[in-house]
Parts: sequence; C-alpha cells; structure tokens
Amino acid sequence: MLSEFSLIDRFFARRARANTRRAALGIGDDCALIAPPAGEMLAISTDMLVEGRHFLPDVDPHALGHKALAVNLSDLAAMGAAPLGFTLAFSLPKPREDWLTAFSAGLFELADRFGCELIGGDTTAGPLNLCITVFGSVPPGAALRRDAAQPGDDIWVSGTPGDARAGLGVLRGEWQADAADAAVFRHALERPEPRIALGLALRGVAHAALDVSDGLAGDLLHILERSNACARIDVDALPRSAALARLPQAVQRQCALAGGDDYELCFTAAPGARSAVEAAAQHAGVRATRIGTITVLDPADPARARPGIAWHDGSGAPLNLTLQGFDHFHAD
Amino acid sequence: MLSEFSLIDRFFARRARANTRRAALGIGDDCALIAPPAGEMLAISTDMLVEGRHFLPDVDPHALGHKALAVNLSDLAAMGAAPLGFTLAFSLPKPREDWLTAFSAGLFELADRFGCELIGGDTTAGPLNLCITVFGSVPPGAALRRDAAQPGDDIWVSGTPGDARAGLGVLRGEWQADAADAAVFRHALERPEPRIALGLALRGVAHAALDVSDGLAGDLLHILERSNACARIDVDALPRSAALARLPQAVQRQCALAGGDDYELCFTAAPGARSAVEAAAQHAGVRATRIGTITVLDPADPARARPGIAWHDGSGAPLNLTLQGFDHFHAD
Repeated sequence: MLSEFSLIDRFFARRARANTRRAALGIGDDCALIAPPAGEMLAISTDMLVEGRHFLPDVDPHALGHKALAVNLSDLAAMGAAPLGFTLAFSLPKPREDWLTAFSAGLFELADRFGCELIGGDTTAGPLNLCITVFGSVPPGAALRRDAAQPGDDIWVSGTPGDARAGLGVLRGEWQADAADAAVFRHALERPEPRIALGLALRGVAHAALDVSDGLAGDLLHILERSNACARIDVDALPRSAALARLPQAVQRQCALAGGDDYELCFTAAPGARSAVEAAAQHAGVRATRIGTITVLDPADPARARPGIAWHDGSGAPLNLTLQGFDHFHAD
Repeated sequence: MLSEFSLIDRFFARRARANTRRAALGIGDDCALIAPPAGEMLAISTDMLVEGRHFLPDVDPHALGHKALAVNLSDLAAMGAAPLGFTLAFSLPKPREDWLTAFSAGLFELADRFGCELIGGDTTAGPLNLCITVFGSVPPGAALRRDAAQPGDDIWVSGTPGDARAGLGVLRGEWQADAADAAVFRHALERPEPRIALGLALRGVAHAALDVSDGLAGDLLHILERSNACARIDVDALPRSAALARLPQAVQRQCALAGGDDYELCFTAAPGARSAVEAAAQHAGVRATRIGTITVLDPADPARARPGIAWHDGSGAPLNLTLQGFDHFHAD
C-alpha cells in the first residue's frame, strides 16, 4: 500500500508540477495561486461524484477519470468560460496502483486536451468519492448566464441528448439495443464531451445557457425560473441519434427529455442570431438544433402564470408530458 | 424527505444569495463568477472530510460545520491570504433537517466572521463526505510560501499545538483528563480557530509558513523539503497549554509534535524580525513561540545531508525522537 504522500506525488503532483504554466504556485503549498487574465473573471464550479450514484462500482477507471473532469468542464462550457485549472479531492478505500494509473490517465488526457491544469488537491481514505472544482475565465459581460433568456428567443440544444440515459437503461436491462447501438449509448454515458468550443463560440451570440446534466426538461426549467419566462418545445424537433431513434418512442422521449448525464448545452438566442448560432456550432464541430421558443409569463393564462414548459408535437398539437429531472435525493 | 433542490435552497442557497457581495454571480448558475482585487491573486485550497476518518459519526453537526470550513480557512491563513468565498460539495445518506440546521449554522457563523461567502456547491446522496474549496486573495509578492525559509531563520509556532490530539486520545480512552482539561482538548479538536489575522499580519514579516494539520514534525518537514534546509528544534520550548502540561511528558511530546488537527501556523522569520513577529501575534491576539532555527544542508554531515529535523532539549542535548506525521493511508 502506498502512503498518501507518495501516492499523490506519483500519480498527480509530479505531473501537475511539470505542467504548471498558468498557476503561479500549484500543488505542494497550502494554496495554489492563480489569476484570471486581465479584465476577466474566474468562473468556478464544483461537482461531487459518488460510487453507486453517479457511476457503477465496476466503472472503467479511465472512463471515470474522463467523466469526473468532463462534467466540471461542461459547467465552464455552459458559462462560455475558457478552462484554466482544477483541484481534485478524492476519498478512496484503498490506493490501488492499476486503478490510479488508469484513472489519472483518463483525467489528464482530457485535462491536456483543454489546457486545464491540476493546481491542488486532497486525498483521503474512505468510500470512493470524487470532488473536482474547476476554474475558467470569462470577460464579465460575455458570460452565458441562466437568467438572460428573452421572450421570443429560440431555444437550442447541442448534440443528441438522451444517449447517456439510453446507455444506463441498457446496463440496467430496462431495454435492449444491438451491440453497435449499445456501444454508442455507453460511450455517451461514460465519455461525455464537454462543449467548451461551442460555449466559447456562443459568447456574444447566445443569451442564456446551461449544461444538461439532470435532463433537458428539468434543466430548461432552471433557465425559465431564473429568466422568469415560459417555453414552448416541439418534442418532434428534438435531435435524436440514429441509435436512440431505434428505441420505442416513449423510451426516446424519456431519455431525451428527462434522461440526465447528457452534458450538452441548452441555450437561447434571438431569432436574428440563427445563422450566427449555426456558424458557432459548425466552428465547434457540434450539431445545434432549434427545439422551441421562449414565451412571456402571462398571469391571465393558468398555463403560463409561472415558469413552465408547454410541449407540443411537430403538427403544433399540445402534448401532455409529465417529466421530471433527475433529483439525487429522490428514488430514481 | 426533502428534494435536493429544496434542500439546497432552504439551508444554503437563499442564505448565499442574500450574502453575496464579492461574487458577481453566485449559487444558481453553472458557475460562480469571482475576481480577486486588482493586482492580487486568488489563493485556492481544497479539503475533503470523511466520516470515521476526520470526524466521528456522532460528531456535533454544528461543530462539524465549523471545522469543515475552519480547516480550509487555515490554508488561506498559512498563505497570508484574505478570505473571499468558498464552494461546498457534500454527500449525505439522508437529508435530515435538524442535522442540516445545525451544520449550516456552524458553517455560516464561521463564514460570516471572516466575510467568506458561499458561492457554489453540489449535494448528492452517499456516505457522509464534505468537500470545501476556499478562495482568498493575496498580493503575489506577499504570499507566505513553503519554499521561502532561509538559513538562520527562527522557527515559530502559534498557539499551543497538541491539544486537539490530546482530545482525540481522551475520546479514544488512550489517556484520561479531568473534566475541565477534557473540555479544553475537545474544544481544540472540534473548533479549531483559523489563524487568518496572524497570517495577514505576517505578510512582509515571515518568510515561509504552513498550517499544522498533520502534526508539527511532519508539517515542518514540508517547509524544509521545499526550502531545501534543515531545522534544529528545542523540544522544551514547545508551547503547551496548561491542560496538556498535566499529561505525562511522553504524551505531551506525542501530541505536540505528531498530533495533527492543530491548525496552528508554523512559520520562519529572520532573527531581526522578532519584534515584528511579536507585534503581529499581539495584533492577531494569538501566542507565537520561537521553537528553533533553520540550518543549512551540509552534504558532509550525515545528520544534515538532506532536509530533516534535529531535536534537542532545553539544555541543548540532542534527543532521539522518532515521530511521524498523520498519514491518511497509514493505520493510525
């Protein structure tokens, strides 16, 4: 068994020291020292991943290293922030060298791809738990906030939400898929791609944005609540992967709207910005699909008296969907 | 049972929103936005606390709220940084209202005292685990780094290290103390006071500094390794509380040198700065005691060929102590 200090040094600190460019002082002191570029602010987000809740006990540790950082980078993407660095705190029942080798490889491959440096951390013995806090930078006026949606805005979503939830369903035996589709779903579940390039390209183009971690329906509601608005969503316009489109329609809707773990961006932009949104998506190499419209609150209309979503199908007929986002303290 | 979102809102977010002054954007968006004052850097530290490892299952939740933030603020103190804000991620088996009421009260009482704002967080179901990441600010040249000790520097320590370890020993039945002494020890263990005022007052006065979390001997070694130096420590000069001084001498030394959980500052300063150190300590309302000297590495002397500590007693006679700092992956 490795001691804590040799463990940190072997898998994390040595690497972090070699990499440190942006932090004036990284791992090995009481604090890391970091400053955003002149005129920019630091964007900060923290996420905790727990075994049995956010990942299965037999998860591939390389995939876990990727995902633990990816879900945090996704928060930066949703803010239009550029990654700078992160801290990693984790508790681990026993420090196993093969596990740590794979976990740190998955973590650093993603970190290197986005120039995001490990600047500090903490390790301890305990049930497996990973807590990453990520730091990015953004000019204050360019941040994509949840409270910035405007009536009349188009509502957009990146990628094809629902594949991660479809993958979880296959693992759980809730539904079946052939090997090729199952591989697509599993990749979506285990290797989400943070939409950093899209978030950066949407600065000055999008109004409100967030990342879809708990299901599109529930997360969009956060934008509506913060922006004090309603939404009309065309369920048939939802982008679906070819693999998801092969599952039953009810499963498709459940996965795409209430699935969770997608880490796609949901954002709003003025109708006049459609070509700019398309250009941003093309630049970022990711699909962006228009799925609805932001509408105003109307105290006289019970359906729009408070922030909420009106669902309809491609013909404009209303759909009565009762969906709920993923809530960690509810039974799934 | 409370849902995750109402839980966060009830105990943390509403409070955080009301408090937010320094963060341009706090809880409720994908990221918090924060900037250090002009010309200063952000000092960042993260600590994870696990039940059964860092606190006992029956810990008073008010004390736990205090301690979870205190150990992080202590890292800012050790850097000479002024507190700005923190993120809180925690996993919790079941959200119990009475527990959360007490925990959040302990947390915010300390946070308010130091003007340190909750700016973001994450909660999830899982074995009890608390991860706080804290942010402070410090002018880059004023940071108290571990690598800044100079040969000839005095070595100082604040407060009376050892009381927390003495308290753990009483709880574990390793030794006994009368009720009054046991209360002193328990307070030290459960309510460590982060030495923020001392850290700020030592800017421009001290050279190297760190906070004593894993035992004075082991932590001082971190300064020596980073500064490439040795130390001579007068064990009889170690400040001891009246309560600790009533325990057997061997227990006193064990607690004071290898105890852990003290959160006092250990720092070095030039001998010419003695009155400035005394003034800083007086200003901060905390005791500072000179306990030794930084010495140069000497490849010709096996005892000083690499960073290490030479222990001696008040008469100058060498002591052969074998002590080890607290290591989370070793059995205690």
